[in-house]
Amino acid sequence: MTQTIADRLSAVRAEMAKANLDAFIVPRADEYLGEYVPERNERLHWLTNFTGSAGMAIILKDKAAIFIDGRYTVQVAQQVDNQLFEYLSLTDTPQLPWLAGQLQNQARVGYDPKLHPLSWQQDAEALLNKQQMQLIAVEQNPIDQHWQDRPALSTQAARLFDQQSAGRSSLEKRQQIGHAIAKQGADVALVAALDSCCWLLNLRGNDVPRLPVILSTALLHANGDMQVFTDLSKLPKETLAHVGDGVSLCSEAQLPEALAKLDGVKLLADPNNANAWLQLTAKQHGATLIAASDPVALVKAQKNAAELAGMTACHIRDGVAVSQFLAWLDREVGAGRFYDEGQLADKLESFRLNDPQYIEPSFDTISAAGGNAAMCHYNHLNGTPAMMQNNSIYLVDSGAQYLDGTTDVTRTIAIGDTSVEQRKMTTLVLKGHIALDQAKFPRGTTGQQLDAFARQHLWQHGFDYDHGTGHGVGHFLSVHEGPQRIAKNSNNVALLPGMVLSNEPGYYKANEYGIRLENLVEVRPAKALANAEREMFEFNPLTLIPMDTRLFDKSLLTEAEVNWLNAYHQTVFEAIAPHMQGEDLDWLHQATQAI
Amino acid sequence: MTQTIADRLSAVRAEMAKANLDAFIVPRADEYLGEYVPERNERLHWLTNFTGSAGMAIILKDKAAIFIDGRYTVQVAQQVDNQLFEYLSLTDTPQLPWLAGQLQNQARVGYDPKLHPLSWQQDAEALLNKQQMQLIAVEQNPIDQHWQDRPALSTQAARLFDQQSAGRSSLEKRQQIGHAIAKQGADVALVAALDSCCWLLNLRGNDVPRLPVILSTALLHANGDMQVFTDLSKLPKETLAHVGDGVSLCSEAQLPEALAKLDGVKLLADPNNANAWLQLTAKQHGATLIAASDPVALVKAQKNAAELAGMTACHIRDGVAVSQFLAWLDREVGAGRFYDEGQLADKLESFRLNDPQYIEPSFDTISAAGGNAAMCHYNHLNGTPAMMQNNSIYLVDSGAQYLDGTTDVTRTIAIGDTSVEQRKMTTLVLKGHIALDQAKFPRGTTGQQLDAFARQHLWQHGFDYDHGTGHGVGHFLSVHEGPQRIAKNSNNVALLPGMVLSNEPGYYKANEYGIRLENLVEVRPAKALANAEREMFEFNPLTLIPMDTRLFDKSLLTEAEVNWLNAYHQTVFEAIAPHMQGEDLDWLHQATQAI
Repeated sequence: MTQTIADRLSAVRAEMAKANLDAFIVPRADEYLGEYVPERNERLHWLTNFTGSAGMAIILKDKAAIFIDGRYTVQVAQQVDNQLFEYLSLTDTPQLPWLAGQLQNQARVGYDPKLHPLSWQQDAEALLNKQQMQLIAVEQNPIDQHWQDRPALSTQAARLFDQQSAGRSSLEKRQQIGHAIAKQGADVALVAALDSCCWLLNLRGNDVPRLPVILSTALLHANGDMQVFTDLSKLPKETLAHVGDGVSLCSEAQLPEALAKLDGVKLLADPNNANAWLQLTAKQHGATLIAASDPVALVKAQKNAAELAGMTACHIRDGVAVSQFLAWLDREVGAGRFYDEGQLADKLESFRLNDPQYIEPSFDTISAAGGNAAMCHYNHLNGTPAMMQNNSIYLVDSGAQYLDGTTDVTRTIAIGDTSVEQRKMTTLVLKGHIALDQAKFPRGTTGQQLDAFARQHLWQHGFDYDHGTGHGVGHFLSVHEGPQRIAKNSNNVALLPGMVLSNEPGYYKANEYGIRLENLVEVRPAKALANAEREMFEFNPLTLIPMDTRLFDKSLLTEAEVNWLNAYHQTVFEAIAPHMQGEDLDWLHQATQAI
Repeated sequence: MTQTIADRLSAVRAEMAKANLDAFIVPRADEYLGEYVPERNERLHWLTNFTGSAGMAIILKDKAAIFIDGRYTVQVAQQVDNQLFEYLSLTDTPQLPWLAGQLQNQARVGYDPKLHPLSWQQDAEALLNKQQMQLIAVEQNPIDQHWQDRPALSTQAARLFDQQSAGRSSLEKRQQIGHAIAKQGADVALVAALDSCCWLLNLRGNDVPRLPVILSTALLHANGDMQVFTDLSKLPKETLAHVGDGVSLCSEAQLPEALAKLDGVKLLADPNNANAWLQLTAKQHGATLIAASDPVALVKAQKNAAELAGMTACHIRDGVAVSQFLAWLDREVGAGRFYDEGQLADKLESFRLNDPQYIEPSFDTISAAGGNAAMCHYNHLNGTPAMMQNNSIYLVDSGAQYLDGTTDVTRTIAIGDTSVEQRKMTTLVLKGHIALDQAKFPRGTTGQQLDAFARQHLWQHGFDYDHGTGHGVGHFLSVHEGPQRIAKNSNNVALLPGMVLSNEPGYYKANEYGIRLENLVEVRPAKALANAEREMFEFNPLTLIPMDTRLFDKSLLTEAEVNWLNAYHQTVFEAIAPHMQGEDLDWLHQATQAI
């Protein structure tokens, strides 16, 4: 018999009663605390039926609440039974103060310490203790105890990522990061981020949707030795030889024992990104925690020559695939054939699927027609995909995981006629995109310092957009990686050569249309500065896909901006034309004409 | 018999021996921790003969060191005996680690808790304790015990600052800030900053050079009541009526007793800006310290209409005075008469002195000829003032305290012929100045986000400058006030209407020349935005002084930049021409001609 949501809630409450808990907290995260979660670990979905990418449920004895953000206010009502769950705002209703307000003194609040960062645990404990309440770590997650027909994890083998693609051996990487660990006064670092672990080992996998990693946790020692805890059955037999000296491959079951052996060890761990259980267990057994950010992240972010070569190569093929889609789309619109957002996303992927090196999307495609594009995180799978309309704007933000790199691009396309206002706004977005692309900046400059370049032209007219301008992108790894970013928010990580970031200003008019122009760019030493007194860096676009010039108003562009656009289109043409034929090539010719 | 520096050192060491101290630390600051220090409190100068504006001495039993920054490497050698003091870098040699390296375990390090912020005391204590050393607060500063012929404090009466100029009554201000104190969960706030205290009371004074305040410390209660500790003999008899209900005026001698009465009180204090003694004393007597930034600063920074009217009015008169100086300078250069930097600074002040509302310079004038201007904090009084040379650039950065406001302006002047390179660099600085001036930005934007606008054109050519772009400016108060600023450094204070800031990009070519173009600007709601979706702000220049167009290369300016310059000069002409005559007016006419 199928469990209903009510059954599931009852089962969790029964476990709460056994453990004498007044509340239990269910986040969307799994123990790896990443953006994407394998189906097997979608506990929030099992408990509530909610499929959104962010959320939290809090179960009390006689009520329950689900916290979601503004993107999901429509979706939550469609998916989650409001008889069982109150809907609350993830951003406007801080969860723990709300919870404390529901409870009496001496209340006991249960949580699974593997599903929260240590920093959350510390804040939650302090807040609850202030109110004479207790935060109680459960030994076993009550959901796991009652989940019938729980999906299995992927059993696909890990991929040995050859050194030619990775550019450096695992040993070399481990020794470099080990040295950095020692410099921070630590003996061992906890490698909790899945992409950090796979990057260190030159491994890839298929365990998580959109993120080509294997599920694994590791301890990296200052001498470069590394204990890796993972499902050993997925590792090809050549793995040990591939990763090189000093790596011990252990089953996940051996992790608690390994943490218990850290007595007296100075353990570097990132309290914001590694789960509480890992750090609390190590501490209980005598480790001294050194709170510091993931020591792999900054090194991984600075792509080496081989990684950059892969990123460049896959962007040519991705440029061909997306351009073929855009050419097809223009022909279909010209012929009066219209499609829904889902069909368009699938069609786009069909072109990428021709590439033998294509693995999967790097994130869920945002295929948004008309007013839907005004929701900057729109997902047509969360409701009924809308049909594109004539005389509107279509926005498509998509990316791919290739064996040699990761892509992410947004193009905004005129479907039939567009208005003067739409062309003005798209041109203001373009001007911001160009200003950021053309920036030169001295060593030490952060993305936060450059962010306003992308917004300045919108600001001149009283507009803005409510998202960051750029995120880091991995090399056949996460499409959203740190530690650098380009945004208003405080970020003190300087941009360095080899970093790959998105440049994606936008504009969103609620219910009417959305615009975003996104290229990936690499940071490189600035060229052609004769008398420079400072070490300067600049961006170089990796993305090679035409921007829809029908949406630009040339009269609003300076000569330098027109030159940028024409030169960019010339570069696009030269790079991808050799790989296009027939009417696609004709389209490319037209789409990259100088304005 | 005059005390020599060696005598003074011996006297301090004798006191150290009595107190069993192995070291004693002498900062440049006095108990108010401000930028300027009354002569009576120049302890570092008394002990070392060093007159620079930043520095620290550390006295050990058998050696001593003076820490100074890059500006003072020449000066320290002229002023400080290297037989008595080792010269060390304030920025490159962290003082406490250096000190700890000189000492044995169990060493006792003396300091005067009134002369350091609490945050310094906390860091120092933690660092020394780690090395089994002790930080010992002295009861009485050994310098004060041995200072013969110590200068007296000013005895000038305080000035009652009328409500018409201040715009709001003291009571109104105190109640507003009191409310903010309560909102932060505190009962009382320590008002330790001199300008905060005087602003709250609508008082001004002459106790500190360059800063028109009276020396005072206060406790502001959440209900708006305020205990003020100051030299009562300086207060006019109408003071109590002037400041209004709820103010008790107390002698400084009563401060310890008042701090001792704070048992059980939640005391808001700024650990970075209030001295350790105040906070440690309150804590010893049972107060709970709430660490938060000065609650007066952000409100004070947002000038009200009366304050802005004063700032506007004094900038017209200041514009006239500085323009008269620039006109005179051009005539003298034309006649082949040259002057040294000191004569030029004095001549500039002579024009300001014609104004009955002029009080004093708002900081020590930077009057820098040729290569001296490449030192951005140059002071001709620190050595022999240089002569201006024909065919060079002269930089003058000066400001005034007027009864109705504070000014600060930098102009860079062509003396004879200038080179293509000099004109190119000045034009790049101008382009940055204009870009920042012309920015519009949504509510919530910080100066950190805008800083790169001023640097972008220099960056495009591989240049930069190593100082902030803008600082806050007070209303007949400190020429350097927070909490907002425009700089690369992290600062999360949003710019708000009524704030006054400098806009001062520059460029410095070591030993050759220096360029800086500085106006003060006010933040105001953006005008003329028809369809704005966001609440937008913009800058409006307060400074009304021509920029030397002989240093600009028009071919490097866009049409919009040329229009900005011509419109600015038009505004300058209209504002100050009515107050100028004869050859000065002719000069103004010429200097503000459209390019």
